[in-house]
Amino acid sequence: MADGRPTIYDVATRAGVSKSLVSLVLQGSPRVGDVSRRAVEEAIAELGYRPSRAAADLAARRTHTVGVLIDDYTNLWFVDLVRGLHAALGPAGYRLAVVDVATADQAEDPVESMLAMRVDGLVLGMDPPRSLLARDGAALPPVVVAGTRAVRDARFDAVANDDAEGARLVARHLVGLGHRVVGQVCAGGGAGDVRREAFSAEVSRLGATAVDASWRGEASDEAGFRAATELFAADPGITAVFAANDVMAVGVLGAAREHGMDVPRDLSVVGYDDTSLASTRLVGLTTVDDRSFDVGHRAGALLCDRMGAGGGVAAPAARDRESRVLAPRLVVRGTTAPPG
Amino acid sequence: MADGRPTIYDVATRAGVSKSLVSLVLQGSPRVGDVSRRAVEEAIAELGYRPSRAAADLAARRTHTVGVLIDDYTNLWFVDLVRGLHAALGPAGYRLAVVDVATADQAEDPVESMLAMRVDGLVLGMDPPRSLLARDGAALPPVVVAGTRAVRDARFDAVANDDAEGARLVARHLVGLGHRVVGQVCAGGGAGDVRREAFSAEVSRLGATAVDASWRGEASDEAGFRAATELFAADPGITAVFAANDVMAVGVLGAAREHGMDVPRDLSVVGYDDTSLASTRLVGLTTVDDRSFDVGHRAGALLCDRMGAGGGVAAPAARDRESRVLAPRLVVRGTTAPPG
Repeated sequence: MADGRPTIYDVATRAGVSKSLVSLVLQGSPRVGDVSRRAVEEAIAELGYRPSRAAADLAARRTHTVGVLIDDYTNLWFVDLVRGLHAALGPAGYRLAVVDVATADQAEDPVESMLAMRVDGLVLGMDPPRSLLARDGAALPPVVVAGTRAVRDARFDAVANDDAEGARLVARHLVGLGHRVVGQVCAGGGAGDVRREAFSAEVSRLGATAVDASWRGEASDEAGFRAATELFAADPGITAVFAANDVMAVGVLGAAREHGMDVPRDLSVVGYDDTSLASTRLVGLTTVDDRSFDVGHRAGALLCDRMGAGGGVAAPAARDRESRVLAPRLVVRGTTAPPG
Repeated sequence: MADGRPTIYDVATRAGVSKSLVSLVLQGSPRVGDVSRRAVEEAIAELGYRPSRAAADLAARRTHTVGVLIDDYTNLWFVDLVRGLHAALGPAGYRLAVVDVATADQAEDPVESMLAMRVDGLVLGMDPPRSLLARDGAALPPVVVAGTRAVRDARFDAVANDDAEGARLVARHLVGLGHRVVGQVCAGGGAGDVRREAFSAEVSRLGATAVDASWRGEASDEAGFRAATELFAADPGITAVFAANDVMAVGVLGAAREHGMDVPRDLSVVGYDDTSLASTRLVGLTTVDDRSFDVGHRAGALLCDRMGAGGGVAAPAARDRESRVLAPRLVVRGTTAPPG
């Protein structure tokens, strides 16, 4: 009681019980026997233990909620991620709350929002925001980065598909079909960078030419349309386009349509993510299955372990941090064919 | 102190302050002066006011988080709703957490999940789950139902577009173009029912024939595909199809493609919601703007009022509950034309 105010430790000492048991009483846990409960309550009353201090203790209470941060609801790759997370976390009694940072106030710290909800764990389905990387690990619940390996932080587990390998699968598919000049519609961010570099390298290695659109920004239909339009103008010899994700690929398909190009006769188009959009009969997009469900499932299992161990980021590690990479798969549909 | 345990009212009485002020002290609010704080703390100590009781009071503490319940991440109508909500709630300091009940455990009560996160308010971007309707209003934060008026509960504010009018706009557009037999792909749920009935009635009134697909279920691409396939088989004279929402309309477009029908020459297709998918150049869907952003904005403003007033559902109403209906707009794109 250095500052004159009793703490939870003082209550525990006075009651002759552990601090954990005091916490359980504060939480109203039914697991505490009457005798212990009464001892704690008496100690609280005798010491004048302040509920305003109790608030901080209560803040540590489990909500059984896992926060999921994503950066765009309209980029549907996250849907399977969330399904996979739920498959792992649901049976353990955890609920998911998703926050799209793009719909939120840009000035607001999304990590802070999650902590305010008192999430027991955090899944980043996006490049980790700088605010997270700068944060003191002791103030964080367990964190798993899902879907990108571009930003590495030894404090967090990470699960992702192998973006470089996925891009190489596309390069081999297109060059194997006979395409000699292939355009590339790039996305910004970690995974986008990895895909772009691996694709260019593999296309070159196979003796063909990759032409990058200069666009590097949000993954949207409109961005895909603009980048493809730029590519068609830059090199009329392009017979195939690899888009960094499905939503941009739909923009490429729209551009092809406006330019009177038949897909796949005049132009082959490949996306990435194998979202619900890619598998519609209307779009029927050749794409890369990024294993989002499996990424979510593994990320959820890792998080479950961490949360069950009661260990925050700063807690002594029960085991080393894990960085898991899943092998992507090429999914061939109707938008690719040999050049006409 | 009927059961021998002091309550927050007893603390307030003993300290000679209001219950709200005791709450503020419990929350550690800096807005409480030292004198009042000390009086409350002394009363707490003297009465032996139990922190386990305080836990319940603390549960009422503001998190500045608003929960949004939706029923399908892949039905993108919710994205503009969330943007509108954020536009209204963000400046007031509220954050949004979205939960898709379809990705969650079906056995779990989604309302319970939201309450566990201690949301300050709840937006239902779906038909209200039965568990909510059955719940005691006193245990609920303010609730706004957004996007459907099919389930009315006098305890909740409601904001939606006028689904009946939207469906009539489509009927007038298609019959006006000269279509005599129009198919209808229906969705389950409140808004879907309203659209279906209003569309059929208006088509009949205009002297044309509406043919309903028997499908009533989830709003998905696959469902739209199946329902359209059924319609084509049932009546080869159908030259236009109204789908209950955009995602089902994309399924209809896929079915038309598989049947070798050119859109809009052989078949006109109309959706509902004006999602980001409808406005892509690839899809270019004629649809109804359901004013999701405005619905979200108005719902957010209503919720903001309710939360600011500190009033839960059971609190004395500062004003009557509001049921606001916004006028939808027909958005004509490339999928509708006179019958070929």
